[in-house]
Amino acid sequence: MIHHDLKLYNTLTRQTEKFVPLHPNLVGMYVCGPTVYSNAHLGNARTFISFDVVFRYLQHLGYKVRYVRNITDAGHLESDADEGEDKISRKAKIEQLEPMEIVQRYTIDFHQMMASFNALPPSIEPTATGHIIEQIEMTKQIMANGFAYESNGTVYFDVEKFAKDNNYTALTGRNLDDLLNGTRELSGQDDKRGRLDFALWIKAKPEHIMKWPSPWGEGFPGWHLECSAMSRKYLGEQFDIHGGGMDLAPTHHTNEIAQNIACTHHKTPVTYWMHTNMLTVNGQKMSKSLGNSFLPHELFNGSHPLLDKGYSPMTVRFFMLQAHYRSTLDFSNEALQAAEKGFARLMNAMKLIEHLKVGVSSTSNVQVLRENIYAALDDDFNTPIALSHIFEATRIINSVNDGKESITHEDKELLKKTLYEIVYQVLGLKEENAVNTDKIDGLMNMILEVRNEAKTRKDFSTSDLIRDKLKEIGFDIKDGKEGSKYSLIN
Amino acid sequence: MIHHDLKLYNTLTRQTEKFVPLHPNLVGMYVCGPTVYSNAHLGNARTFISFDVVFRYLQHLGYKVRYVRNITDAGHLESDADEGEDKISRKAKIEQLEPMEIVQRYTIDFHQMMASFNALPPSIEPTATGHIIEQIEMTKQIMANGFAYESNGTVYFDVEKFAKDNNYTALTGRNLDDLLNGTRELSGQDDKRGRLDFALWIKAKPEHIMKWPSPWGEGFPGWHLECSAMSRKYLGEQFDIHGGGMDLAPTHHTNEIAQNIACTHHKTPVTYWMHTNMLTVNGQKMSKSLGNSFLPHELFNGSHPLLDKGYSPMTVRFFMLQAHYRSTLDFSNEALQAAEKGFARLMNAMKLIEHLKVGVSSTSNVQVLRENIYAALDDDFNTPIALSHIFEATRIINSVNDGKESITHEDKELLKKTLYEIVYQVLGLKEENAVNTDKIDGLMNMILEVRNEAKTRKDFSTSDLIRDKLKEIGFDIKDGKEGSKYSLIN
Repeated sequence: MIHHDLKLYNTLTRQTEKFVPLHPNLVGMYVCGPTVYSNAHLGNARTFISFDVVFRYLQHLGYKVRYVRNITDAGHLESDADEGEDKISRKAKIEQLEPMEIVQRYTIDFHQMMASFNALPPSIEPTATGHIIEQIEMTKQIMANGFAYESNGTVYFDVEKFAKDNNYTALTGRNLDDLLNGTRELSGQDDKRGRLDFALWIKAKPEHIMKWPSPWGEGFPGWHLECSAMSRKYLGEQFDIHGGGMDLAPTHHTNEIAQNIACTHHKTPVTYWMHTNMLTVNGQKMSKSLGNSFLPHELFNGSHPLLDKGYSPMTVRFFMLQAHYRSTLDFSNEALQAAEKGFARLMNAMKLIEHLKVGVSSTSNVQVLRENIYAALDDDFNTPIALSHIFEATRIINSVNDGKESITHEDKELLKKTLYEIVYQVLGLKEENAVNTDKIDGLMNMILEVRNEAKTRKDFSTSDLIRDKLKEIGFDIKDGKEGSKYSLIN
Repeated sequence: MIHHDLKLYNTLTRQTEKFVPLHPNLVGMYVCGPTVYSNAHLGNARTFISFDVVFRYLQHLGYKVRYVRNITDAGHLESDADEGEDKISRKAKIEQLEPMEIVQRYTIDFHQMMASFNALPPSIEPTATGHIIEQIEMTKQIMANGFAYESNGTVYFDVEKFAKDNNYTALTGRNLDDLLNGTRELSGQDDKRGRLDFALWIKAKPEHIMKWPSPWGEGFPGWHLECSAMSRKYLGEQFDIHGGGMDLAPTHHTNEIAQNIACTHHKTPVTYWMHTNMLTVNGQKMSKSLGNSFLPHELFNGSHPLLDKGYSPMTVRFFMLQAHYRSTLDFSNEALQAAEKGFARLMNAMKLIEHLKVGVSSTSNVQVLRENIYAALDDDFNTPIALSHIFEATRIINSVNDGKESITHEDKELLKKTLYEIVYQVLGLKEENAVNTDKIDGLMNMILEVRNEAKTRKDFSTSDLIRDKLKEIGFDIKDGKEGSKYSLIN
């Protein structure tokens, strides 16, 4: 363990607390993953990138982390509305809509997106459909403990009964009476007793495609249940960190806690609850209805009307890390373009540091800089502050490179080690297509220089020959007042 | 549908048969996937690449294909042998070995390997652990139909009873009496009645990690059952094609057929059974015990002692397609190096065809060539014959390019369409890192030419300057008798 001073903000206690895992050097972390019935949206991406940094930093500190992030694939897809049950049952299996084909498509998309963001895969990625038995067993246990009841093939969690001896709203601190006395739902909607009751197991209607046998007839698990069942299976009845988007706290996570306590009697199934904040676009909440919501691939290729141009996955990752995960993150072309420049500056400094000339003394205190970076990350994973110190480091690198400042061999090595570990390993940033585009750029600059010299001495047959040869290889040359520029053909 | 004359060899009938799907234009195909408790081996890779071509060609012909390939993740991993059950149960969940962590690691490895081979993902990739309920239900049905019995918490399939009214060895044509009269297993090994009986559901020993509740107590499904349960769930009780390595036919596939018939009463659950042949190395069977078995990544980086050098994934794919999937495939450095050259020649022709000058007549019959390629693929996916016709096409392209033959505009377009569709879409070959390495090569050749001219006129300051600049950019230059060669630094 190289460091021991990590603190994190706990939604449950509304305080920043020292991180103390339940078992020395081991960390169990669960993050609510994507629903794979459509493209993952940018809010998902931000949440998973934030927890990727948490995962990476905990490992960097020397913890052995078991990071579980689920795939919600038990969708509520129904057969085509214009087809009666009879018509469906007459169809051959292979002619019918198969939800798992959709699941496969969007799971692959999701994995590709996360890989493009250079996010590490979690240690385990369990699926809801892969844990139906565990969900049925948990439902049975909660019923046996008296906190759930069956009604017409559906099993409900009895919130009011649970709330008698437990703080149901502990996670958000909302007032339970206010929730209970809120507008009543229309009666006859379902068979539950209390308006806050939620389904653990849901009876399948005939048109429902994904369903499994259970002690209460054919049905499927309620959404909240899968995370309780899977976190418990892989991390135990009590574990360290549970994360997700902050929109999940009032209902999904509140119900998860209730399910876990009702099943296992542990008062605190999770020690630390961490929640990521929402996205805004030009100051407005990002939402489909406002038309200002773009998908990751639209951000990459710039195809959304609100975007001036595309931004690379690493630019977007860098941009996201410039805000703290508990702050809202505002997308604008200006901010993205600034991030693009900042990221390029950082990557350039990462290359320069290799070749810095060392001197007999250092004009900057690298040790303090290093401590500042760790202090920022130790303070609830404060990546924007860490990045501001990292930019101080790039300033030093550029100054030393320009001969305006000096650095000792020891300080250079310490700075290099710090930046390599924090920028690449912890923040998960990397150069994009580095090797070849760099080399091509270097070679092209060299060739264009030779060609300019030929033009200067009015040797146009050589300069034309070079232009023609470059065209053959696949480069277009444009001569302008400020010199020649090249671009790739196609 | 662009073509209707596909025939394939059916292991079940031991004949090459016309392909007629059960439902017009729809194809259901199931292939036994990898076990993800260790690295996928090269035999797996060959099987999945072979069926990738089947999947691609069926789609190219216009079929809508639902291709299911499972992941066997219900491993028989046991806790550390030196730990008693008591010690294990005292450990916190997070301290215990978790098979799903191993599953995650090797599933990701497998997907990366298949992606490097440019294999399309299947339509659905179901896991064994994700279908425990379906396997329990199938076991119950087989028991209810009288073809299975429980013995001490384990459920066995009754082969002798099944064989009374069914041809148990239909797939391989072996003699059942020979199998029955073979050497008896030691008694007391298990509780089964007949020596060919196999387990549908297995009672878990205390040290067994992966287990689920069932009507017969805690246990886990037998391996053969998962493929029966999952193929039936996603493709129906009867479907078109079932594939796998030929080593699976005598037991795994034979038992799959028995399970399906015993459960559903359909006499032919699968119309066409397709099996891929084995690998040899320098003429010897590839096997771990002979030390001549290498993993895909060893083949890519050349780290196995039997390999002279590494071969790229596309070279290996091309190499595999040069043998028919029902023939053994022999690995040798000579054959791999020949494939590397052949593949480079093909990719070169694919580029040349773009720029071919057209004439008023064609010296070759492109229409016949095209028909020959399709005829080969229609003949049980005969990729080596198809490739030989494709090499006739590359010969024509090179001859036209050299001005020795001519081609009309129409023929050039037809040849281009044929090659693009067959080479890229159906055979799944592609250029590797094409754009940049090509361009770098082009630029380097240009610069080295300039440098050679400088050396010829004894302008060594220029030639040295070029060498130094190239070193800065990252290229090392070696001057030899046969000219200068460049290599990347690092």
